[in-house]
Amino acid sequence: MSAEASAATPKPAKAVKNAPKAKKEASSSTGAIQIGIEYKKDVDFAKWYQQVVTRSEMLEYYDVSGCYILRPWSYKVWQEIQTWFTNEIEELGVEGVYFPMFVPAKNLEKEKDHVEGFAAEVAWVTRAGSSDLEEPLAVRPTSETVMYPYYAKWVRSHRDLPLRLNQWCNVVRWEFKNPQPFLRTREFLWQEGHTAFATKEEADKEVYQILDLYRQVYEDLLAVPVIKGVKSEKEKFAGGLYTTTVEGYVPTTGRGIQAATSHGLGQNFAKMFGMTFEDPQGPLPNGEARPALHAWQNSWGLSTRSLGVMVMVHGDDKGLVLPPRVAAVQVIVIPCGINTKSSEEDRIAVDERIADILKQLKKAGIRARVDDRSTYSVGYKFNHWELRGVPLRLEVGPKDVKNNQALAARRDNGEKVTVKHETIAEDVKDLLDTVQRDMFNRAKETRDANLVYVEDWKDFVPALDDKKIVMIPWCEEPACEDEIKDKSARTGLATAELQDDKAPSMGAKSLCIPLEQPQDKPIVAGVTKCASCGKDAKRWTLFGRSY
Amino acid sequence: MSAEASAATPKPAKAVKNAPKAKKEASSSTGAIQIGIEYKKDVDFAKWYQQVVTRSEMLEYYDVSGCYILRPWSYKVWQEIQTWFTNEIEELGVEGVYFPMFVPAKNLEKEKDHVEGFAAEVAWVTRAGSSDLEEPLAVRPTSETVMYPYYAKWVRSHRDLPLRLNQWCNVVRWEFKNPQPFLRTREFLWQEGHTAFATKEEADKEVYQILDLYRQVYEDLLAVPVIKGVKSEKEKFAGGLYTTTVEGYVPTTGRGIQAATSHGLGQNFAKMFGMTFEDPQGPLPNGEARPALHAWQNSWGLSTRSLGVMVMVHGDDKGLVLPPRVAAVQVIVIPCGINTKSSEEDRIAVDERIADILKQLKKAGIRARVDDRSTYSVGYKFNHWELRGVPLRLEVGPKDVKNNQALAARRDNGEKVTVKHETIAEDVKDLLDTVQRDMFNRAKETRDANLVYVEDWKDFVPALDDKKIVMIPWCEEPACEDEIKDKSARTGLATAELQDDKAPSMGAKSLCIPLEQPQDKPIVAGVTKCASCGKDAKRWTLFGRSY
Repeated sequence: MSAEASAATPKPAKAVKNAPKAKKEASSSTGAIQIGIEYKKDVDFAKWYQQVVTRSEMLEYYDVSGCYILRPWSYKVWQEIQTWFTNEIEELGVEGVYFPMFVPAKNLEKEKDHVEGFAAEVAWVTRAGSSDLEEPLAVRPTSETVMYPYYAKWVRSHRDLPLRLNQWCNVVRWEFKNPQPFLRTREFLWQEGHTAFATKEEADKEVYQILDLYRQVYEDLLAVPVIKGVKSEKEKFAGGLYTTTVEGYVPTTGRGIQAATSHGLGQNFAKMFGMTFEDPQGPLPNGEARPALHAWQNSWGLSTRSLGVMVMVHGDDKGLVLPPRVAAVQVIVIPCGINTKSSEEDRIAVDERIADILKQLKKAGIRARVDDRSTYSVGYKFNHWELRGVPLRLEVGPKDVKNNQALAARRDNGEKVTVKHETIAEDVKDLLDTVQRDMFNRAKETRDANLVYVEDWKDFVPALDDKKIVMIPWCEEPACEDEIKDKSARTGLATAELQDDKAPSMGAKSLCIPLEQPQDKPIVAGVTKCASCGKDAKRWTLFGRSY
Repeated sequence: MSAEASAATPKPAKAVKNAPKAKKEASSSTGAIQIGIEYKKDVDFAKWYQQVVTRSEMLEYYDVSGCYILRPWSYKVWQEIQTWFTNEIEELGVEGVYFPMFVPAKNLEKEKDHVEGFAAEVAWVTRAGSSDLEEPLAVRPTSETVMYPYYAKWVRSHRDLPLRLNQWCNVVRWEFKNPQPFLRTREFLWQEGHTAFATKEEADKEVYQILDLYRQVYEDLLAVPVIKGVKSEKEKFAGGLYTTTVEGYVPTTGRGIQAATSHGLGQNFAKMFGMTFEDPQGPLPNGEARPALHAWQNSWGLSTRSLGVMVMVHGDDKGLVLPPRVAAVQVIVIPCGINTKSSEEDRIAVDERIADILKQLKKAGIRARVDDRSTYSVGYKFNHWELRGVPLRLEVGPKDVKNNQALAARRDNGEKVTVKHETIAEDVKDLLDTVQRDMFNRAKETRDANLVYVEDWKDFVPALDDKKIVMIPWCEEPACEDEIKDKSARTGLATAELQDDKAPSMGAKSLCIPLEQPQDKPIVAGVTKCASCGKDAKRWTLFGRSY
């Protein structure tokens, strides 16, 4: 449901690109080549990102450019998000559904602004078997125009409201810009919630409830800090009334990223699709029927883009760093201090101890695994699991068995602590909680340190060039936003940061108007001026170069 | 992964058909028109089915012919299946993934038999935005050709095996036969598991483990009895080695239905896609390398077709009958005996009692809801929830409050029992278990009563015409199967049973060679003859007209 209409000129589509090499690369199981990351996050960010997502086995490039394979290592993160979010929205009264993927052209084109926002990116099915279809079918880029004709049919009375449905599905947006794993892909997975209410008040309330759930997905599950806010007129969802958003920040590139959006659609779609209901007040005193009312609608979506944000924020030069709550494997147990000279007794003692640890951790609901492959060295295994971002490593050797302990190593900061065997499940659980909290706090400190307040235009572009996101007092006029983008695009910027995307001279967009305005810097009506155009400022607004 | 290649001549595709009527029908919330089912299951089965699935609000017809909307009432059943099955296969070591939906033509065409099985039904994306794609992309009809090039890349050593992945997704098979809700739809939802093993033994073991999970989905969740068996050569999956299946039976039409399939693919795809691994035995004694081995593969799938089978087997003239384990609402609580003359005291007492009941049921993990709409009569509500198939109705009136009881009415057989308030959660749980068990047992008795053993050809077609499925001693020759289909197609059959599908003179196919052969009727090699062609029979085989 993102309103990011591509401004790029469509180039002829290349269906097949990035095909897997015919020559077989050395595999992870046989050798050293893929064991590490060859690029530094701070130096070659784009290459670093590509290596981390592929070598950690989160993702594989696919035969069709812009489409990627989500492997178990990333899909598990998505599953954890799905489980948590589904449970939360069911508590709110939202029900699961599945609507077809194909949209007849006439439905897609019903809402003018909406179709303009998506038309350039729509994939069309024109043939089935050897027959041409009478009418081409769009593959859904989002489902407003799929669903709302039926909402209109189902809603008759105010008693049919609210109608609150959600689906988890794939959508296709055939972007012609450079694709990027997770962040910009031609097919992606998401959930889309579509709801209708009798009153604006109820609808508004839900928009912000969902927005806060999105905040929790990012902050509590993925340990990624986000800023809740409202989109500018220019950046809002095509055809909607207003868009709320959670905005993330990638420190290495200094760019903001739209993390998830919750839209108040108003009555616009309801009018287009004829979603009306009888006025619950009944007829007028004179007996005449009151005019039918239009429903107030919302739509809201969170996609697999979230996985990319998580990787970019937490990863380091050793590879992926996974937040414990969503990691497929939270603890990797590695037998240590066993070699060809070890006694059979020691071997057995370590094996038995590890079996017991795994049992205890599993019982406590912790996702743990042992790496007991005999063909690899301990050092190799350490690297292997560090690259994959497992939050906690437990080392168990003969001495540890004797001393009734294990050595725990944190992936996020490398810290090592000894844990007692008697309390191992509890201690590991505490450690995982600590890692989760520390990861979030560190990311938040970094984000906060890179968010600057600028009131004078001359400080704006230097701040962007210094990889900051920038809060300015702003007039909220679309023309001013265009001008800001234009003015901030002219500066030269080191290409390293941006070579993963677009031209190096990218201008800044408004990311959001934060819900929480700075208390200590009030905007004074008629006094505070827009940092760009000098007109009266309305609210502090967050600007930045962005994904 | 069904091997049902359409033999029908493709007609020009009609993209838009069955469009929702522009004129608004009376809605469920306002009136009587949609409250009941107008057709008898035994008389007008096809119309009955269509009304049940739409008026129960399981499904809505969609603008694109052959595509349907799964509403919350059916999607919840699918969710319950998903949750249960995902948990079971994770225990086996299968991991979740997501592969792209688009298949380049050259990949799709790699396995000759396989592509022949699907080519006539493939939907093609040929355009994106306003640009033609360089190469058309197929929308996956199944994912063998999407996945296996990457399996080949990932598998190098025997240590990379087994590789066991599963995805829940949508697939498209543009069938030109008459579409039917759930049973034959152009887009449907399913899970597809794709696994690779080092040895045939391991692969075979999994095929049957999964087959038994499918049996459990049908028998334990959907209360639908199925027969486990192996498909004939003619009916097996295109490109595979052998296909196992669970086969259901729809008594009203007397037709068999393929419920889910688990395929042993052998090494065929591994050879096509180059999925090889080093021989774990290492080099030969003379130092030469042993030739690389090919992996043994399986694929297995269960689709939303299962929901249709459930409806057809259990539904009755009042509408849907849902098995408790998968019902979105297991218990509907309805306040009774309250009218305009009721005292305020009585009203409050009933409301409070119902609130307490709901609390207790929820605590016990039972999905319960109250229908306290004041605008509808009690009788209307009874019909409303019976049509929707809620397994248990609880009636609570002022007298029930005084007597500390409630009246429970079973949807499956209409039986009413009084339950004590003190033990209500426990009693309701027991009742739901009983309903689930009884529904399965009844369906099994009916199925068993309609499965006949025939050894003489003259009894074969009369049995089919009597809506039986038929076990015969069979030679297992493809030519004989063709002949059986041909010979059994010539008879006239009342059109009522078959008007939902195909020509009225449908011939019988082999449904499966049951794993469990009748103990009391042994096939004697060289003595028992095929009931159709008279050659030596190999095993008892189940034949039937089928979906």
